[in-house]
Amino acid sequence: MKTPNKKSALSEVHGVDQPEAVSSVVAHQIQQFRRKKPSTEELVTRILNGDKTALSRAITLVESTNPEHLEKANEVIKDCLPHANKSVRIGITGVPGVGKSTFIEAFGKYLTSIGKKVAVLAVDPSSSISHGSILGDKTRMEELVKDENAFIRPSASGDTLGGVARKTRESIILCEACGFDTIIIETVGVGQSETAVHSMVDFFLLLKISGAGDELQGIKRGIMEMADTIVINKADGDNIQKAKLAKTEFNRALHLFPAKSSGWIPKVTTCSAYEQTGIDAVWEIISSYFEMVKANSYFDEKRQSQNQFWMMETINEQLKTRFYNHPEISTLLEENKKAVQNNQLSPFAAAQILLERYFKN
Amino acid sequence: MKTPNKKSALSEVHGVDQPEAVSSVVAHQIQQFRRKKPSTEELVTRILNGDKTALSRAITLVESTNPEHLEKANEVIKDCLPHANKSVRIGITGVPGVGKSTFIEAFGKYLTSIGKKVAVLAVDPSSSISHGSILGDKTRMEELVKDENAFIRPSASGDTLGGVARKTRESIILCEACGFDTIIIETVGVGQSETAVHSMVDFFLLLKISGAGDELQGIKRGIMEMADTIVINKADGDNIQKAKLAKTEFNRALHLFPAKSSGWIPKVTTCSAYEQTGIDAVWEIISSYFEMVKANSYFDEKRQSQNQFWMMETINEQLKTRFYNHPEISTLLEENKKAVQNNQLSPFAAAQILLERYFKN
Repeated sequence: MKTPNKKSALSEVHGVDQPEAVSSVVAHQIQQFRRKKPSTEELVTRILNGDKTALSRAITLVESTNPEHLEKANEVIKDCLPHANKSVRIGITGVPGVGKSTFIEAFGKYLTSIGKKVAVLAVDPSSSISHGSILGDKTRMEELVKDENAFIRPSASGDTLGGVARKTRESIILCEACGFDTIIIETVGVGQSETAVHSMVDFFLLLKISGAGDELQGIKRGIMEMADTIVINKADGDNIQKAKLAKTEFNRALHLFPAKSSGWIPKVTTCSAYEQTGIDAVWEIISSYFEMVKANSYFDEKRQSQNQFWMMETINEQLKTRFYNHPEISTLLEENKKAVQNNQLSPFAAAQILLERYFKN
Repeated sequence: MKTPNKKSALSEVHGVDQPEAVSSVVAHQIQQFRRKKPSTEELVTRILNGDKTALSRAITLVESTNPEHLEKANEVIKDCLPHANKSVRIGITGVPGVGKSTFIEAFGKYLTSIGKKVAVLAVDPSSSISHGSILGDKTRMEELVKDENAFIRPSASGDTLGGVARKTRESIILCEACGFDTIIIETVGVGQSETAVHSMVDFFLLLKISGAGDELQGIKRGIMEMADTIVINKADGDNIQKAKLAKTEFNRALHLFPAKSSGWIPKVTTCSAYEQTGIDAVWEIISSYFEMVKANSYFDEKRQSQNQFWMMETINEQLKTRFYNHPEISTLLEENKKAVQNNQLSPFAAAQILLERYFKN
């Protein structure tokens, strides 16, 4: 043992070297990962290893409007794709007030308790306007958010439902590659978002409460027809009897719709997300659905046709965006609109003029 | 008086020259008009003079798939446009079996009896498949078809609803330029044709019969919401009481819908097209609607927004048609569809590849 070189009385002799609390190698790696932008390969490797930080980062790339980020996002998705698709995708909708967050918290916790890995995403095109995302306030699912086997991501913002939908679709792929086997997509229950969500999930759950009187709206907007199950929430306390009555009524209403091409007969059930009762029955319904559609090959057919749908949808949206954002067209469009207004041009002739100009360029 | 040159006993002496039954000048003109293709100016002049033969011919041009005819059609429409728009356009729908033809016959005859000039057109995209047009069998309106102040035209055929709708929209312009002040557009009451018709008329009439039990369908497909009036037909004999009951029920159902932006409150009435009762009440409802919307300027606003809609719709349809019919694209599309199916490409990446190729050309 050497005598220290320092002259201070406070100097001490060296003892046995203690291991560092944090491995400097690992600390360096984490720092590098956080500070530097990890390479595509690195991101993919980490995602495939179930790293939620890497997953979050990849989703951020998907949601970015920066063309460089988008290019990188496309690479990540391409490499994740062969590892995706091994999950069940469940859409959950319901008008504000039915208790969607409480239900998803209770349902998600139930799923992780039986060994599932649960990712919760959201489609909320309105959040881009109000800047308030439905899942933004994560404290609304405070139990689930702390769960190691759960991943919660607020709704992507975007100018259009199409944009939000694309981001969500690609986030699903990333979550699946990260090992999440149960993907829940929440929608706000207003506007056209249900249709978008319906076209990206395998199973569609409509959350209701008894006596809300919004049945007509649901029928009108085709929501009830899309539902694979109707779950009547808040079946607790004084509400139990009313919820049972509502169950009978919804069962009757569902019979009025034509049979589903899946062969599945939609089921109605009641639950209390607050008291955490009836949640297992919901999962039983969903499980028996997946058993059936995986056996009759409807599961694969539906995913294939959803893929086709999104490919076409993206093309059609882009064709329009390119046309209407063309500087020459947008000027001419205003002129032609006026000419149509003044009965100098029929709408069809005006369209023809615009199209000819566009395709000449 | 000269002796005839012929030797036959059957020869007769010339008497006073009789005028020809048909003026040879006019006959020649008609022949020329029918045989030769009249010039655009000639067609327009005749249409503006109320010539139904010229109107028919112009509509045939509009319906043609020959590019030369279409060019001519566009010219005719352009010249007719300043003289159009001076009519009321009424859409009539109802599922098969409610008696649409009988109703239109009775309604049309009533309108001509009070001095209106009535044109009846039809939107039936299914007729292009079944080759059976709803108005093709003109004998179904045998009284109206003989009426000098009525013009009945079977549904244009076409591959797409968009195509049929365009032809009908342009035919409306021609009918109006020809002096028809009341345009009735019939739709078959199946598929999406109601929405197309709704977007080209001022007033939408839903024909019903009591106890048909198709209310849910009507609500679901948004038909009931589009209706400005619901007319319960076949209110005769034993049916009168049931029709009255249905009237009460429909009135209640209509109250569940949000208020119309026109400010109009939809009315329900009963009639018997067969016994020709209640037809005048239908016209009274329609008249009071037009009085209101012409006063509050909704009439003009709606026509303007319909024009805009059709302009955009035509553009969007054409953009898609051009893309998908592009020879290089259709090959690549099949390849990319397979790549998406095999999880080698995400739907969005596949769309991007297609779009890049398309816009490089």
